[in-house]
Amino acid sequence: MTITEAIRVIDLLGTFAFAANGAYAAVRAAKVDIVGLIVLGSVTAVGGGIIRDVLLDVQPVALATWIYPTVALVGSLVPIVLRRPRRLLGRTIGMLDTIGLSLFCVVGAQKALEHGLGPVPAIWLGVVTCIGGGILRDVMTKRVPAVLKEGFYAVPAAAGAAVVAVAPLLGTGAGVAMATGAATCFLLRMIG
Amino acid sequence: MTITEAIRVIDLLGTFAFAANGAYAAVRAAKVDIVGLIVLGSVTAVGGGIIRDVLLDVQPVALATWIYPTVALVGSLVPIVLRRPRRLLGRTIGMLDTIGLSLFCVVGAQKALEHGLGPVPAIWLGVVTCIGGGILRDVMTKRVPAVLKEGFYAVPAAAGAAVVAVAPLLGTGAGVAMATGAATCFLLRMIG
Amino acid sequence: MTITEAIRVIDLLGTFAFAANGAYAAVRAAKVDIVGLIVLGSVTAVGGGIIRDVLLDVQPVALATWIYPTVALVGSLVPIVLRRPRRLLGRTIGMLDTIGLSLFCVVGAQKALEHGLGPVPAIWLGVVTCIGGGILRDVMTKRVPAVLKEGFYAVPAAAGAAVVAVAPLLGTGAGVAMATGAATCFLLRMIG
Repeated sequence: MTITEAIRVIDLLGTFAFAANGAYAAVRAAKVDIVGLIVLGSVTAVGGGIIRDVLLDVQPVALATWIYPTVALVGSLVPIVLRRPRRLLGRTIGMLDTIGLSLFCVVGAQKALEHGLGPVPAIWLGVVTCIGGGILRDVMTKRVPAVLKEGFYAVPAAAGAAVVAVAPLLGTGAGVAMATGAATCFLLRMIG
Repeated sequence: MTITEAIRVIDLLGTFAFAANGAYAAVRAAKVDIVGLIVLGSVTAVGGGIIRDVLLDVQPVALATWIYPTVALVGSLVPIVLRRPRRLLGRTIGMLDTIGLSLFCVVGAQKALEHGLGPVPAIWLGVVTCIGGGILRDVMTKRVPAVLKEGFYAVPAAAGAAVVAVAPLLGTGAGVAMATGAATCFLLRMIG
Repeated sequence: MTITEAIRVIDLLGTFAFAANGAYAAVRAAKVDIVGLIVLGSVTAVGGGIIRDVLLDVQPVALATWIYPTVALVGSLVPIVLRRPRRLLGRTIGMLDTIGLSLFCVVGAQKALEHGLGPVPAIWLGVVTCIGGGILRDVMTKRVPAVLKEGFYAVPAAAGAAVVAVAPLLGTGAGVAMATGAATCFLLRMIG
């Protein structure tokens, strides 16, 4: 498995976890039917990346193939199969979510740099990739976005994105920066 | 009248109906003044198409001419003229809304295919064209979007979009597929 | 100081005022932490311009440099330094907000014209530049956007944008039109 393939797999696992988490949050917050579950879970999973790509003025990668919408849809349906996540499932999804967060913040920041943005906007886009989908879901279920009230989701993402965003100024290569940034985000999130 | 002209007329009638319906929903949901009425009615009418075009990374067709914003604005003002829709007006708007829905889902899916997307994202964009505007309106008036709670608006749209999206795989022409898709959506919506 | 530089300075002062006002509105509306304050203040400040640029299918100018996100971030932190704005600070921010409003509506409309849009969509985009950020903030803090309930924020913006939008039809130059439009917006807002 090459690094590109490994990133792809982590990306899809993270998308699945974001969708499942988003769907559980949606059923807790509002009375929705299966259409609502699919929309809210999918929005949580791919919303942040879509906002990032729209802001970069490129076509969203989540719409380029069938794989992202399909993984998001399958993740959204987890609460139908299991009304409340069992202990093990809950922890697995939580871990995949943290791994997804760690990947999404560095991928978002790196993509912004590759499209010619400077470090400050790159950090913003790294964070937007991570929190955009959850904000959309919370707004649609009439809640003040959780991420605005408890910073320990956005802060690790910002830290991870910052590592990637400042790397070019330090002459660090993108690969090393992304690995370091993802590890930084992961550790901060586990501690926080 | 050519087919293109016929589609244009249906498109504008649907936009009018979406705006009028959106404005009635807005006055029911929140205390808004005339500015709010215009914004919410217009957003309901053209919001879905605008989101679709933004996701396709093209300039929104609703902003390309004066006709869409103007038709949307006029439709938004219907509740000012008639506080509660009379029986006949209510049914006319409802029928135009269903016709608009049937057209918007197939147009959205077809436009996605023409921009190189595959069938799964095309179905999503067909649905987004139909439900995006209403979701924006409901979110702005502090309601959980109706479409997330009662699927029989999104499901016919998804079915209509799916007919268009799979047509190329079956070797069916776009014209036949769009007519079949629109009819499918219309029938499901009338039954549902 | 050239005119371009003067516009730049006004633009940044307006961004600062929008951010500070947005952050004060956010703390009044919801219990948010510092991350929420920064997100909501920044969204208020640059959200409208970002929506405008996304609709024009260009990369948002607010993300092109570090200056806009940074000014927005600093403005967002004003409520941390001063929990309630003192009289003088409150009036200064209010005045900068009105100046920002007057500039943003004409800049938005002019940018739309330069991208080939007609007068009606140009007016819409001028208004969106002004009210888009505040709508996003209010939606995220679970409020019906203030601008939908009291028109005397959107109406001056629409008037200012309209002056710019119709200027080409009257053969008026862009500079004169923008100055007249900004003055129109400013006066209407002071009266209203």
